[in-house]
Amino acid sequence: MVHHLHREVEALKKMILSLSAVVEEDVQHAVKSVVERDAKMAQRVINDDYEIDQNEVEVEEECLKILALHQPVAIDLRFIIAVLKINNDLERIGDLAVNIAERALALIAQPKLDANIDFSTMAGKVQTMLRKSLDALVNMDSQLARDVILRDDEVDSLNREIFNRVHEGIRKHPERVEYLISLLSVSRNLERIADYATNIAEDVIYMNEGEIVRHKADTLTNDKSAASGA
Amino acid sequence: MVHHLHREVEALKKMILSLSAVVEEDVQHAVKSVVERDAKMAQRVINDDYEIDQNEVEVEEECLKILALHQPVAIDLRFIIAVLKINNDLERIGDLAVNIAERALALIAQPKLDANIDFSTMAGKVQTMLRKSLDALVNMDSQLARDVILRDDEVDSLNREIFNRVHEGIRKHPERVEYLISLLSVSRNLERIADYATNIAEDVIYMNEGEIVRHKADTLTNDKSAASGA
Repeated sequence: MVHHLHREVEALKKMILSLSAVVEEDVQHAVKSVVERDAKMAQRVINDDYEIDQNEVEVEEECLKILALHQPVAIDLRFIIAVLKINNDLERIGDLAVNIAERALALIAQPKLDANIDFSTMAGKVQTMLRKSLDALVNMDSQLARDVILRDDEVDSLNREIFNRVHEGIRKHPERVEYLISLLSVSRNLERIADYATNIAEDVIYMNEGEIVRHKADTLTNDKSAASGA
Repeated sequence: MVHHLHREVEALKKMILSLSAVVEEDVQHAVKSVVERDAKMAQRVINDDYEIDQNEVEVEEECLKILALHQPVAIDLRFIIAVLKINNDLERIGDLAVNIAERALALIAQPKLDANIDFSTMAGKVQTMLRKSLDALVNMDSQLARDVILRDDEVDSLNREIFNRVHEGIRKHPERVEYLISLLSVSRNLERIADYATNIAEDVIYMNEGEIVRHKADTLTNDKSAASGA
């Protein structure tokens, strides 16, 4: 029984890693479609959402199956619950990639305006957070998860920088408000993806250290509120 | 054993309803603090977040306890999993209420500008969605859940209306960009709360009809992507 459980847990890890690879690629392509004004690429991200939604349902069904058949306890139970929550978060990150791709289409429909905004650095940091949070899950690595949480501030600060540039752009070109607010929206969606990566990392820490943390509710909730941000 | 399980499920329903009552009140107060420029109320919402975070941890621990002790199957298992996910969503709605309260403080720090924006209607609709989605959960009422999903479009359209007014405001008062973008941020946070209420409603339907829907993956995922929106 235990042997079967571990085999199914390994299969589940593969499923969630494969979902996260699709989601990660979508985030990358969504940002690229903004930067390179590539409507075809944006449309592909929008179409991919269907596949992500289907994968999410499959992972959840697999989790429920494992819970019903093997009735895991302790760390195995916590792992399945963490996967359930993280699966949900990955689907929502997919939705945010779609939001960015939709902004790309809106931007492409308007004449280009150089607002001196660098999305690539921010997107790179967000993707690293996402990849590391999933690595932390499959390797049950709390240290790596803590590393992800620390990076959230860098993304927040890049988001503020982009806000300032948009702000400046609107003062200079008030007739281009719509275009500039779409750029701001891209940045906010990236920041939200970083928030989800932070949530995933928090779930990994909670899964690993839940037994200990449960008796120190204060420490846990303080950490959480500090990390989740605005 | 089954008797105990049902008693614990009833207790869990009370816990999640009490969490949702706190979250709902925070959303209401956050919007009121914007409309009435009430810094004290905004600060109270920000302080409440600690309590919400603690409640979330307690509900999750309770779910894990029930899973480990009673190893529920079928609809009982699906109910616990739905509560786990919805609990997570409620905590995030609490974060969005904090975002709105922080925008309130930023707005109060600046001179008032009448941008002819009515947040009360939108907030009222969002709160109704939230309340009904939780009612749908505790009463396992798929019909009510479908009703919540249908209302999401109304909130999206109010959000677009506010976007247009902000847009107009920026053209007229480009020097007040920061103020006006804070108003836009309040509206977007409300729209995101409506999205979470929609997610909760979808989870209720999935919990109730999962057995049937599982064999019709297409129908389910189409519904999901249509309802979750951008």
